[in-house]
Amino acid sequence: MSTHRDQDRPLAGLRVVECATFVAGPSGGMALAQLGADVIRVDPIGGGPDHRRWPVAPAGGSLYWNGLNKGKRSVTVDLSAPEGRELVTALITAPGPQAGILLENTGRAWLSHETLAKRRPDLIHLRVQGHADGRPAVDYTVNAATGVPGVTGPETTAVPVNHVLPAWDLLTGMTATTGLLAALHRRQRTGRGGLIELALADVALASVANLGWLAEAQTTGRDRAKQGNHLYGSFGVDFPTRDGRRVMVVALTASQWRSLCRVTGTEKVFAAMEEALRADFSQDADRYRWRKVIEPILRPWFEDRTAEEAGRELGAARVLWGPYRTFTEVVERERENPLIADVEQPGAGAVASAGSPLRWSGAGPVPPVAAPRLGAHTHEVLSDVLGLTQADLSRLSRAGVIRGASPDR
Amino acid sequence: MSTHRDQDRPLAGLRVVECATFVAGPSGGMALAQLGADVIRVDPIGGGPDHRRWPVAPAGGSLYWNGLNKGKRSVTVDLSAPEGRELVTALITAPGPQAGILLENTGRAWLSHETLAKRRPDLIHLRVQGHADGRPAVDYTVNAATGVPGVTGPETTAVPVNHVLPAWDLLTGMTATTGLLAALHRRQRTGRGGLIELALADVALASVANLGWLAEAQTTGRDRAKQGNHLYGSFGVDFPTRDGRRVMVVALTASQWRSLCRVTGTEKVFAAMEEALRADFSQDADRYRWRKVIEPILRPWFEDRTAEEAGRELGAARVLWGPYRTFTEVVERERENPLIADVEQPGAGAVASAGSPLRWSGAGPVPPVAAPRLGAHTHEVLSDVLGLTQADLSRLSRAGVIRGASPDR
Repeated sequence: MSTHRDQDRPLAGLRVVECATFVAGPSGGMALAQLGADVIRVDPIGGGPDHRRWPVAPAGGSLYWNGLNKGKRSVTVDLSAPEGRELVTALITAPGPQAGILLENTGRAWLSHETLAKRRPDLIHLRVQGHADGRPAVDYTVNAATGVPGVTGPETTAVPVNHVLPAWDLLTGMTATTGLLAALHRRQRTGRGGLIELALADVALASVANLGWLAEAQTTGRDRAKQGNHLYGSFGVDFPTRDGRRVMVVALTASQWRSLCRVTGTEKVFAAMEEALRADFSQDADRYRWRKVIEPILRPWFEDRTAEEAGRELGAARVLWGPYRTFTEVVERERENPLIADVEQPGAGAVASAGSPLRWSGAGPVPPVAAPRLGAHTHEVLSDVLGLTQADLSRLSRAGVIRGASPDR
Repeated sequence: MSTHRDQDRPLAGLRVVECATFVAGPSGGMALAQLGADVIRVDPIGGGPDHRRWPVAPAGGSLYWNGLNKGKRSVTVDLSAPEGRELVTALITAPGPQAGILLENTGRAWLSHETLAKRRPDLIHLRVQGHADGRPAVDYTVNAATGVPGVTGPETTAVPVNHVLPAWDLLTGMTATTGLLAALHRRQRTGRGGLIELALADVALASVANLGWLAEAQTTGRDRAKQGNHLYGSFGVDFPTRDGRRVMVVALTASQWRSLCRVTGTEKVFAAMEEALRADFSQDADRYRWRKVIEPILRPWFEDRTAEEAGRELGAARVLWGPYRTFTEVVERERENPLIADVEQPGAGAVASAGSPLRWSGAGPVPPVAAPRLGAHTHEVLSDVLGLTQADLSRLSRAGVIRGASPDR
């Protein structure tokens, strides 16, 4: 099941200890596992607070936990017991140039970098935080403070519209893996490790700044309004089709705009309008300014076609478009996509699971593997990494300090 | 201005050539520059299709382009001329263990891995795509097909609600940097480079699968409905406050729920309700099931307080919360945050710009630097990397094959 034995994978041989919960840390750890690292997720006995997080399968297993922890090894230890903490500390600080890498979001004092670096001075330690000052935060609270919900949703909605996708969590996860691998590059060059801190709130704030949205508010002194499903600053919007479906269409560049006009047979209409309005729709600013005039001129073409017909013509014309789908449609549709496969997951049966989207050297995506059963690798890891004997493991088990796979999972 | 000279930075000494536009590729390249790499962005003379992308400053410069290209070196070359292509090919395949890294999204044949690997067999080449089969796509078209807009927005909205944040672009950018650094780790170990492909559509599909959303639709056979601003599968929603503002509040764990009840003085009410409803609000499934009963019981507490008062009390109780802000408020509020600083940007003046959210060894965030003026480093890079002489550069300039910084920027 685990992927860490394939020596050809980019991160083969690397060992990462993960003490993290929910999305950001675990999604980062999973990406490293999908690249071939041996990622050891440590949880308290019985599982962390995310172990039963929704969505859950009818059979009881968390589809969320399974989805975010595939290909890791799972170790469960009593984290309140000094002996349990010592085992985890030993795992984190075990020697070797390919080990000594920690990804965590606990904020616990016994996992402070100062404490751990006494045992392994070159430890690479990435701590995911809510706010940089230590205040807790999650994707949804951070998102409110970025300003994004205020510009999301229908124009007629006066209140903020939250995103449903935990975008900041996912982005923080991949920022964390980038940071960890950069730190590894430095350690290989200089021998130095160190603490790297990464706050969810900072990832979100930097992102809205990087898109120019803060500078725009600053230089204009005002906030943009909601635009519904219209793209900001160019032309893009959704259209209903004859069969009651919708497609999203985008003309971001002048050449994409020309293709869209050509395929929809609207070139002459728009040429006349450009003259009448003294506009130049090859400029994205003008396409944006006149979007509500452009949209109804394009609409009949879509209303005359099924989504499939529209998509076929748009695709042939290299127009940027996408069909709207529901999750059940996505599952059905992506059956032939090698990125997704039904994998037998703990407490869930065979369910749609994703591999890594990174495709190496012309091969397809790395196929998905199962998440571990909670605690399944406790004995194996403590024996492999720390050299514990069967007698040690039995004693620790009896004392309640460690636990193997839960019988119900 | 450029950050690539500080030898203490994690990726100091590394050279990356970027031939990419819009968000995904450029945001990844910028993250590498912020980690200390020398990132050389190559554009056609006059700039790529994203060079004037909105938002733009009153002075004309693209705040978007500036925001996504900070700290890089900019080279402009006639990419339609064979001699221009040869210069770019030479830059990409220049020797050295710290060079030979390409990040691109062009899909151009002359940048095919096969062609480039003839010149440098150990080239690390990450290609960002729309769809894995080569069809074009952008964040907004990919997003429609993930199913996410169908579960986003007010419950009363029958149509899909697009996200405004280009979440898939940003996530693809950081997945790309993770892939590049993993490939570098492998090359250092094995001497092998290779092509790594990464499609925006695959990043999006893998993400909704990883969150368990596809498996949920598959195992239940139905699609979830829109939940407005409610968190799915636990308790979290926004509340209006006395001063006409809103705050987002989340109780993801039993302990966060207890804190929320304690600070709002609702413990007894909820205990009585749990008995009456045979519910257990310490369970996230029950908090979710009864969210519309819970919400109005909590609401008066918020209506009695200003957002600031509510925030102070919630914060002291370690309840997860966040204020809603507009972009102008974010700019004002984050003035003291070292992650954001006013930096003089090309064609824009001094505007709010973000550094890297990754904080190294207890230091603050790496402060922001300016984006390059388009073409500003053409001569410097061709002389540094390819050893071109002043005479070579003059000849190429006169022939229109290269150009330095645009006079208007």
